[in-house]
Amino acid sequence: MSDLLQKAKLLKGTTTKLAASTTEQKNEALRLLSNALREQKSFIITENNKDIAQGRSNGLHESLIDRLVLNEQRIDDMADALMQLIELNDPIGDIIEEWERPNGLKIQKARVPIGVVGMIYEARPNVTIDAASLCLKTGNAVLLRGSSSAIHSNMALVKVIQDALKQSELPNNAVQLIEDTSRTTASEMFKLNDYLDVLIPRGGKKLIDTVVANASVPVLETGAGNCHLFIDESAQTDMAVEIAINAKTQRPSVCNSIETILVEKNWAEKNIDTLIKKLQEANVEIHGDDFTMTKGDNIIQATDEDYETEYLDKIVALKVVGTVEEAINHINHYGTNHSESIITENEANAVSFMNQVDAAAVYHNASTRFTDGFEFGFGAEIGISTQKLHARGPMGLEALTSTKYLLHGNGQIK
Amino acid sequence: MSDLLQKAKLLKGTTTKLAASTTEQKNEALRLLSNALREQKSFIITENNKDIAQGRSNGLHESLIDRLVLNEQRIDDMADALMQLIELNDPIGDIIEEWERPNGLKIQKARVPIGVVGMIYEARPNVTIDAASLCLKTGNAVLLRGSSSAIHSNMALVKVIQDALKQSELPNNAVQLIEDTSRTTASEMFKLNDYLDVLIPRGGKKLIDTVVANASVPVLETGAGNCHLFIDESAQTDMAVEIAINAKTQRPSVCNSIETILVEKNWAEKNIDTLIKKLQEANVEIHGDDFTMTKGDNIIQATDEDYETEYLDKIVALKVVGTVEEAINHINHYGTNHSESIITENEANAVSFMNQVDAAAVYHNASTRFTDGFEFGFGAEIGISTQKLHARGPMGLEALTSTKYLLHGNGQIK
Repeated sequence: MSDLLQKAKLLKGTTTKLAASTTEQKNEALRLLSNALREQKSFIITENNKDIAQGRSNGLHESLIDRLVLNEQRIDDMADALMQLIELNDPIGDIIEEWERPNGLKIQKARVPIGVVGMIYEARPNVTIDAASLCLKTGNAVLLRGSSSAIHSNMALVKVIQDALKQSELPNNAVQLIEDTSRTTASEMFKLNDYLDVLIPRGGKKLIDTVVANASVPVLETGAGNCHLFIDESAQTDMAVEIAINAKTQRPSVCNSIETILVEKNWAEKNIDTLIKKLQEANVEIHGDDFTMTKGDNIIQATDEDYETEYLDKIVALKVVGTVEEAINHINHYGTNHSESIITENEANAVSFMNQVDAAAVYHNASTRFTDGFEFGFGAEIGISTQKLHARGPMGLEALTSTKYLLHGNGQIK
Repeated sequence: MSDLLQKAKLLKGTTTKLAASTTEQKNEALRLLSNALREQKSFIITENNKDIAQGRSNGLHESLIDRLVLNEQRIDDMADALMQLIELNDPIGDIIEEWERPNGLKIQKARVPIGVVGMIYEARPNVTIDAASLCLKTGNAVLLRGSSSAIHSNMALVKVIQDALKQSELPNNAVQLIEDTSRTTASEMFKLNDYLDVLIPRGGKKLIDTVVANASVPVLETGAGNCHLFIDESAQTDMAVEIAINAKTQRPSVCNSIETILVEKNWAEKNIDTLIKKLQEANVEIHGDDFTMTKGDNIIQATDEDYETEYLDKIVALKVVGTVEEAINHINHYGTNHSESIITENEANAVSFMNQVDAAAVYHNASTRFTDGFEFGFGAEIGISTQKLHARGPMGLEALTSTKYLLHGNGQIK
């Protein structure tokens, strides 16, 4: 039996007890883990240094090295996040609906854990603590598969988790790490339907696409964000420009930043030069359509490829459109169904846009940067779903739950 | 471009308009379809006769021929079902939750259509009307792929649907049938992530397993039912026997019928002979464990294979267990997470059983035969989900919906 299969079986063996664990037991395990992280800092940092040394000798870019680093501050942050997670409502056991049938059968729909979660992720080792703690809070067992570049850090963190679990009343085996980070183990996970209830990939587009294309285990897809801002004819100039700058530049590398700005032609006639000037002052490179090209300097001609691109950088495509319908069609054609915003004082146009744009989150007069579990007030985030099943948009703890019908009778037969 | 891809593109082109359709427009389309079915009876029956003739010449078993038949009565039933569907609440547009953030951003979670549903199904042509009408009611476009044995019937029914759509205000292209029923088209559907938001297989275990194993499009899995009845020590004898007979014999061929009865040993000492007698009087063949073998005649020795088998016939496995924990462990090991019932007067045992058995529906003192969208009061059923994501248990109209966040601001930036 492969190491992976053996661990998957161990995990499956914990699900009944995990599902029956009380909120107090789960929170106590998180508290023990938070303390253990602080106590084991030097061990974690020593192991993390091995990954950093290996990364440097492999010529890893310093920005990627930075994502790997676990220093005292970052470990304290992880420990703090665990204490915050304790404060969140435990959704398990909630009765979502209940009703009675004419035959007297009482039906309850209860929230239960999913079972065993498979997590496939890249680089940043803090995902190890993040994923494990969110799963434990929701009574799920978790099989972790991180990347080879963080393997020493991940092994150290999982050791700390498992030691904390041993002191807790939760099953000791509830968190397992796959230490073999070859492609074979990922492929084995993709098909492990008998043991894994869901796979959650966290990382770049390539990783997510590979999991979606190859997994027979259901996938919670967290996708790319080719997000748009549409500035309508009646948009307030200051608001539109301020939101454009914020949505593009506040953190260009994340999925809820905008990549294309669509501008209604009459607004453009009056204000696009201001928008161009402010974007360029913020060091944003503009790829513009023909009209835009006439309104400023240093603008690169935009092509179809621009409209398809998630730059994740200080670059934006700028295009003039005739109507809100044209904007909606552009977005539904090129967008990735993530976050889309309209700036307008015209309520009817706002309603059309919000109803007809097919995205997880549609905004009126606000920056797309709020598509985030914390900004939504969930207190935690597993990722941002861009698929339509199970969960869509920012996923909090509830996305890690399933439901179960409880039927109470007194002898009913059909 | 393949015929399938062309149809998928047509469907995708209808989703914006479908999502914006009013409840009245959708109900009017269903009413037109209901009338058209009644008016086109002779056309439908003529085409259906071609499938029946082909089935007979292929040596199809009469029970399967019967499932193919569309006669006046069955067409009237389909037309009636459409009129009932009109009466059901349209979930699209419902605001599930709404709240305001400290920065003044108002967040609404609205119910929206999934988009394009791919339906892969076997034999019974009434699924064509069923699937199309449930999708239209929930604003979804649908790509239908039935089996070759029902192709003439399916083509006739889809012609009736498309003619009805032309008279309605819904997009004409919202329902498409793949006429090429070769394996190639199914395989093409499995990977059509750019056009299909979900695949729903309806049919036997082999079909469902093939779709789950090969599809990269998310699947709503409706699975097999290896269901159990556990009769606890304190169970009322009459209630336990009556429920056992009902859950086994009322319709043995369906997924929510029981396949194994587990009996607590003290109850068994006193009552298993009565249970055996009643089961045998109902022509149920018993596959029993050693203890059961000593309590009656004509009992076949049960093996591990029995406990794994979904007989879907008048056969039941009968096994004595020592405790409720043993019953729970047996069910979690051999069950398919569908429907499980405990008969007991002991409330603590009922709670343990219902919390610890991992199934879509768990019953106390009732027959498992109620796991059904109509019995649950949903008024419609797409299938019974045995997976943990998106929907679990009987799926009504809501299972054909997704959600979308609507965010209303007044200039918020991050």
